[in-house]
Amino acid sequence: MTSFIKKRGKKYGLSPGSLVLTGEPKDTKVKVQLIEFDADTLKIKDNASLDECVFSKEHPPVTWINITGIHDIQLVAKIGSHLKLHPLVLEDILSNVQRSKVDNYKDTLYIVMRQLDFNSESEQLKDSQISLILGKDFVVSFLEAETDLFAPVVNRLKVKNSRLRSRGADYLCYALIDCIIDYYFITLANFDEVLDRVEEKLLDRPNPKTIKKILAVKRQILTLRRAIWPTREIISQLQRLESNLISKTTRFYLQDVYDHSIQAIETIESFRDISSSLIEVYVSNLSYKMNEIMKVLTIMATIFVPLTFIASIYGMNFNNIPELQWKYGYFYALFLMLAVGCGMLYYFRRKKWI
Amino acid sequence: MTSFIKKRGKKYGLSPGSLVLTGEPKDTKVKVQLIEFDADTLKIKDNASLDECVFSKEHPPVTWINITGIHDIQLVAKIGSHLKLHPLVLEDILSNVQRSKVDNYKDTLYIVMRQLDFNSESEQLKDSQISLILGKDFVVSFLEAETDLFAPVVNRLKVKNSRLRSRGADYLCYALIDCIIDYYFITLANFDEVLDRVEEKLLDRPNPKTIKKILAVKRQILTLRRAIWPTREIISQLQRLESNLISKTTRFYLQDVYDHSIQAIETIESFRDISSSLIEVYVSNLSYKMNEIMKVLTIMATIFVPLTFIASIYGMNFNNIPELQWKYGYFYALFLMLAVGCGMLYYFRRKKWI
Amino acid sequence: MTSFIKKRGKKYGLSPGSLVLTGEPKDTKVKVQLIEFDADTLKIKDNASLDECVFSKEHPPVTWINITGIHDIQLVAKIGSHLKLHPLVLEDILSNVQRSKVDNYKDTLYIVMRQLDFNSESEQLKDSQISLILGKDFVVSFLEAETDLFAPVVNRLKVKNSRLRSRGADYLCYALIDCIIDYYFITLANFDEVLDRVEEKLLDRPNPKTIKKILAVKRQILTLRRAIWPTREIISQLQRLESNLISKTTRFYLQDVYDHSIQAIETIESFRDISSSLIEVYVSNLSYKMNEIMKVLTIMATIFVPLTFIASIYGMNFNNIPELQWKYGYFYALFLMLAVGCGMLYYFRRKKWI
Amino acid sequence: MTSFIKKRGKKYGLSPGSLVLTGEPKDTKVKVQLIEFDADTLKIKDNASLDECVFSKEHPPVTWINITGIHDIQLVAKIGSHLKLHPLVLEDILSNVQRSKVDNYKDTLYIVMRQLDFNSESEQLKDSQISLILGKDFVVSFLEAETDLFAPVVNRLKVKNSRLRSRGADYLCYALIDCIIDYYFITLANFDEVLDRVEEKLLDRPNPKTIKKILAVKRQILTLRRAIWPTREIISQLQRLESNLISKTTRFYLQDVYDHSIQAIETIESFRDISSSLIEVYVSNLSYKMNEIMKVLTIMATIFVPLTFIASIYGMNFNNIPELQWKYGYFYALFLMLAVGCGMLYYFRRKKWI
Amino acid sequence: MTSFIKKRGKKYGLSPGSLVLTGEPKDTKVKVQLIEFDADTLKIKDNASLDECVFSKEHPPVTWINITGIHDIQLVAKIGSHLKLHPLVLEDILSNVQRSKVDNYKDTLYIVMRQLDFNSESEQLKDSQISLILGKDFVVSFLEAETDLFAPVVNRLKVKNSRLRSRGADYLCYALIDCIIDYYFITLANFDEVLDRVEEKLLDRPNPKTIKKILAVKRQILTLRRAIWPTREIISQLQRLESNLISKTTRFYLQDVYDHSIQAIETIESFRDISSSLIEVYVSNLSYKMNEIMKVLTIMATIFVPLTFIASIYGMNFNNIPELQWKYGYFYALFLMLAVGCGMLYYFRRKKWI
Repeated sequence: MTSFIKKRGKKYGLSPGSLVLTGEPKDTKVKVQLIEFDADTLKIKDNASLDECVFSKEHPPVTWINITGIHDIQLVAKIGSHLKLHPLVLEDILSNVQRSKVDNYKDTLYIVMRQLDFNSESEQLKDSQISLILGKDFVVSFLEAETDLFAPVVNRLKVKNSRLRSRGADYLCYALIDCIIDYYFITLANFDEVLDRVEEKLLDRPNPKTIKKILAVKRQILTLRRAIWPTREIISQLQRLESNLISKTTRFYLQDVYDHSIQAIETIESFRDISSSLIEVYVSNLSYKMNEIMKVLTIMATIFVPLTFIASIYGMNFNNIPELQWKYGYFYALFLMLAVGCGMLYYFRRKKWI
Repeated sequence: MTSFIKKRGKKYGLSPGSLVLTGEPKDTKVKVQLIEFDADTLKIKDNASLDECVFSKEHPPVTWINITGIHDIQLVAKIGSHLKLHPLVLEDILSNVQRSKVDNYKDTLYIVMRQLDFNSESEQLKDSQISLILGKDFVVSFLEAETDLFAPVVNRLKVKNSRLRSRGADYLCYALIDCIIDYYFITLANFDEVLDRVEEKLLDRPNPKTIKKILAVKRQILTLRRAIWPTREIISQLQRLESNLISKTTRFYLQDVYDHSIQAIETIESFRDISSSLIEVYVSNLSYKMNEIMKVLTIMATIFVPLTFIASIYGMNFNNIPELQWKYGYFYALFLMLAVGCGMLYYFRRKKWI
Repeated sequence: MTSFIKKRGKKYGLSPGSLVLTGEPKDTKVKVQLIEFDADTLKIKDNASLDECVFSKEHPPVTWINITGIHDIQLVAKIGSHLKLHPLVLEDILSNVQRSKVDNYKDTLYIVMRQLDFNSESEQLKDSQISLILGKDFVVSFLEAETDLFAPVVNRLKVKNSRLRSRGADYLCYALIDCIIDYYFITLANFDEVLDRVEEKLLDRPNPKTIKKILAVKRQILTLRRAIWPTREIISQLQRLESNLISKTTRFYLQDVYDHSIQAIETIESFRDISSSLIEVYVSNLSYKMNEIMKVLTIMATIFVPLTFIASIYGMNFNNIPELQWKYGYFYALFLMLAVGCGMLYYFRRKKWI
Repeated sequence: MTSFIKKRGKKYGLSPGSLVLTGEPKDTKVKVQLIEFDADTLKIKDNASLDECVFSKEHPPVTWINITGIHDIQLVAKIGSHLKLHPLVLEDILSNVQRSKVDNYKDTLYIVMRQLDFNSESEQLKDSQISLILGKDFVVSFLEAETDLFAPVVNRLKVKNSRLRSRGADYLCYALIDCIIDYYFITLANFDEVLDRVEEKLLDRPNPKTIKKILAVKRQILTLRRAIWPTREIISQLQRLESNLISKTTRFYLQDVYDHSIQAIETIESFRDISSSLIEVYVSNLSYKMNEIMKVLTIMATIFVPLTFIASIYGMNFNNIPELQWKYGYFYALFLMLAVGCGMLYYFRRKKWI
Repeated sequence: MTSFIKKRGKKYGLSPGSLVLTGEPKDTKVKVQLIEFDADTLKIKDNASLDECVFSKEHPPVTWINITGIHDIQLVAKIGSHLKLHPLVLEDILSNVQRSKVDNYKDTLYIVMRQLDFNSESEQLKDSQISLILGKDFVVSFLEAETDLFAPVVNRLKVKNSRLRSRGADYLCYALIDCIIDYYFITLANFDEVLDRVEEKLLDRPNPKTIKKILAVKRQILTLRRAIWPTREIISQLQRLESNLISKTTRFYLQDVYDHSIQAIETIESFRDISSSLIEVYVSNLSYKMNEIMKVLTIMATIFVPLTFIASIYGMNFNNIPELQWKYGYFYALFLMLAVGCGMLYYFRRKKWI
């Protein structure tokens, strides 16, 4: 989270609409994929030129310009100006710390969502930004991370006469949102595995590393929450939007995505509930182990302390200790010790300590 | 919960309306029960054919098609197409992880609810899906689990001139919802038993297994909550619905179910409240036991340590230790020890430790 | 609570409107008290016949039929049919687990409230049901428990020309509700005593029985909450009701009851706040006692362990231990021990342990 | 709080409008102060007669009747009937457990607020009641406690042509409310001191008395909360009131008081937040002290136990123990002990225990 | 916080509109900076005279009077009367404990916000007040702290034909608000560093100082919260304001600031979540260390106690102890001890204690 706040801090003093790359610069090339389709035709071009994009965007059929990578400010700015995007939109696209939201510009809708990737091996959560611009007959998507997130949508586009091909840009936009939210469940499932793993460790081998892990998990849940909670609001806004960019049929489908986003939120809240008891579990387990340790100590001490006392009595050097003269005094002493020891053991067993 | 999130993840990348069985496939046959009734006549046919169902659905009197099992995709798809169900409805019927909801299609209402079964022996919670479709003069019900849940409704149908027989399909649908929610209380009562059992264990024999149990119980409460909370909203939606599928009289009866769903929710919240203090109780009990252990140790150590010290003084080998020469030196030492021991015991009693 | 959920479970599979006694059957006779009054006349008849009740109900002046006991289903059913009560109302009267609510039938209002009795001796909370039916010129009240709850209202009726006598049935109904809610404060005051007692025990003699007590108290608070929270809503509904059964003046008086119900709710919430820290207090107190115990042990062990060590040095059997030959070796050793012991004591005092 | 609930309980069974003194009776005389003013003239009369009050109330200029003490029922009843107060208002004035509220009677507004006094020496919180009645051209105030709370307002009245003198009764009423709420901050500041003191004690000398103190503080915060929370609602009601008793200008000034009441509420919530962690801090501090104690014990035991063991080896009486015969055996043994002791100390230092 | 409540308390008894400096007096001079600009011209004058300000304020182009320091009451009062500010506004400007808010006067808007400065070295949070007055063609800003907060805005003004220069006073006001909120993120980032540092300390070297630190951090979070939460409401009010002081375009930009204020709030809530588990982490870490200590003690005691017991047996002085006569009795005893010691070690290793 530290990094998120620091990035936001970079903006202090800047004019709104300034193009600043808040993320880290990268070496890879920004990829521009151009897809044109209607029910009958489909044209997919990787590494399309900007002119092609502009031409396609302004002519039917439906155009999808899918841009992967936002780290090349100049290029993105050029794309922005070619596609005639508003300066505030361009600023938000480049910022990778934007809160999920919908902005309603006159002819276009600007949607920001977060892509969440959780690697259950490295236990790293990657939170990157996706910007969608929906206009009449076109969709432009900007993905911060290099990812195959939208690959299934591209594949479904290849099926002729599918619903996706027959409907317009709004349905494509819906399909992309659906795709992002469905992917949350994969992320959440991975996260759940780690949660289970932490829980197991807690109960098996509690140690301060586990506490660090719990704190890390809690912070990750906060990040997940911040990313997933606003989606409900976004979809609800899209449904109620006074805009003819979204058809009535598509609004109906959005209800489905709305239900999914609620399920994602409920899952996050369950994670929160569970995580909040983890430190308690840790402490309770330490308490239990402490009890076990103390029992051993107490048993040992309590058995041997009286025995040693007996031995030390007969180790005294008084001239006149009658027992010392007895023939079987030593064995009597040993027997006494045995009796006391067994008595203590019996006592502990009755107390259910052993 | 893990399994639920994983199942949801399966849907990533699929077109909405795709028929996917998110649950596990089973061997048993899907059962189709066809019931036709009005105030005078009643026809019950187990294992009805699809044609019969379709014919009956489209002709008066009231028809109830009760389908048990959703694991045979092909069959369910066929049923769906015969009964002319919308593809999104069919997808939701097959998905067994749908959130409870009401969808208002033009001529039909689609209602999803969760059936909850808690076995107080095995302490397993089974959460399965029930789909209800209410149309003019017909109800179609899909039950994921093989269950006798609706048996009492079938029995009540057998009573001639009963309210259930005299009223229409909407009243039947209400009766089914009422049945599902009344069953929640049986589930909650079973769960309550287990909660009591865990509490007792906590106080009697706290050990890490109990902690695992508490965590399991907490997760089950989260599942119960997720299933039961939305029912209130569903029933309230049904009451306010702008649809003439539900008559005014039936809306009145729904108020009754609404009250019950609130009671179920209140019960769940009570469970949550109680469960949230269980780990605290566990730790407090361990603390108490620790105190008891430490008291024993302290009493033993504190009594014998000074005694042993006295003994070891007279075990020293100095040439000149006057007491050693005394005739009754040994007995004097024993008496000294007795006095010290009794003093300590008196001190402990005053401190109320023994 | 267990019993409440079990009782609710009994209803599964039954037709709505079925008359089932969810409470336990009793031997006592159901009492029917008939009271007729206007500003000038007052007629009180205990053990009135049903015919008298019906006649009175349908003729002026204001009639109050006060029925104590709901355990005789047949009788109550007969009363219900004579008084022409709706079957759903009759079912709710007999059920003793109904949530507090107002139902607006055409000519009558049906109000359910909970009567709470807390015995500060036995520490038992008795939660029973009160049903009020308000019609034009009559009130019918059903009390589950045998109780003198309404005795003060009967007494106030005996005062000629009092407000209660001069106003209509709605004011009587308001007076009964006011009476129920004022009685909550007696219950809450008794409960508060027990809460104080538990707190004291916690601090004086913490032991696992106290934990059981705390858990019991928490469950009772949940029951109180479930009973008292809905009253606010009920009264607010009565105030806003579109019905001419309740006059404008009476609505004004209801505002007063509304304020009281809020005070009752605030009290319950305070109880909840306080009870939620009780386990923490218990643990903290155990921790304190543990510290005290450990201090004693540590002081004893730390003083005597070095002393015993010194003694055991001079108990060694080496041929050549110079000190052993000293004339005052023994006294030197004793002095050494004294010095070490005092040193330790000084150290502990500086640490503020003793 | 106990006393509050008990007082409320006293009202059970009484007719609404009954005059009952719920507080304790006192010996002091009820003081009636009569103040008449407009921009030019000011007349202050302590111990005014009722007739003067009535006369003044019904004639211009603005009249303020300031009554201190409500413990003389007869007198207050007489005042009430002279001033023509509604019976319900009179009941609420006498009850000293009324929740803060505004009641809108036809020609007058009745406002109840709580006066809070916290003595940071005795750590006692005094919660008494203030009733304000605002009519056309007059304000009547009833103060339960003998207090100089309104002295600054009286003083400000003495300034000729001040805003307070120039405006009407509504502005005076606003000034009184402002005064009450500003006084809350003095109360809260005193309370804050005590909170700091408790916190310090917790960290310095934790003992069960501190726990009692924390519980007392928590209950006081609940009382503060119950008194301060409703003020926000009251002022907001006054602002939105459909009544020409309050002029538009005064409504504007009320906004200022509204902001202050929110600040008071925020302060209370901060107190709650802080107080809720106090028990945790207490336990954590005990844990720390326990750790310190255990370290001392462990260090002492762990150093001397092996040493004593060595000594006891050479205290054995075997005929043939070669070391015993060595010339410097004793010194070798001492050296061995020294080495072991230093080794242990080194180990502890490495573990950072000493 | 203590100081804040005390400052608020100072106002008790004062007439609203009284000019009181609630903050501490300072020596520095109040700075008055006058900036006039339109798209073409820009005039910046530090230490402007009041007459210049008044003249400029009442004539186009846009005027910004930026006043740093509010500790000189006379001067500020003079400024206020020259600029014709309402007495309530002047009071709020001088009070440095005002809650963030918007007041809508007829021709001007009065906005109060908090400036937050967190020094991550000294770990001090400085909370000072900023007042903005927006009128037609002018903005007046009062800063309590001497700060360069608005320097970037001044710099951006120097860019000819920038958006800031071309738009009116409302856009300037927006730019200042944006600047304040963007600065929050720098404050939050500094705070986050300290939070991380505390967390690390907790896990490394838990001691009571850390607890004091945690409590301080918690109080600072409460202060941050109180300052940042109301900003959302302020901006939302500005957006919905029925006033032609704010143009439609500027309202659109305010949406951007609104999103940022939500992000700031979310960050604060995350801090709260994290901080609330810090004491738990502290206790859990102490528990862990305690376990470690107890293990060492138990191991040492448990190994040496039986060994010492054996030694003391053979230190007894019975006449007849056969082993003592054995030739290798001593070595047999040593071997026995070794065996027992190793046995114990094996036992501990199996228990995974070492």
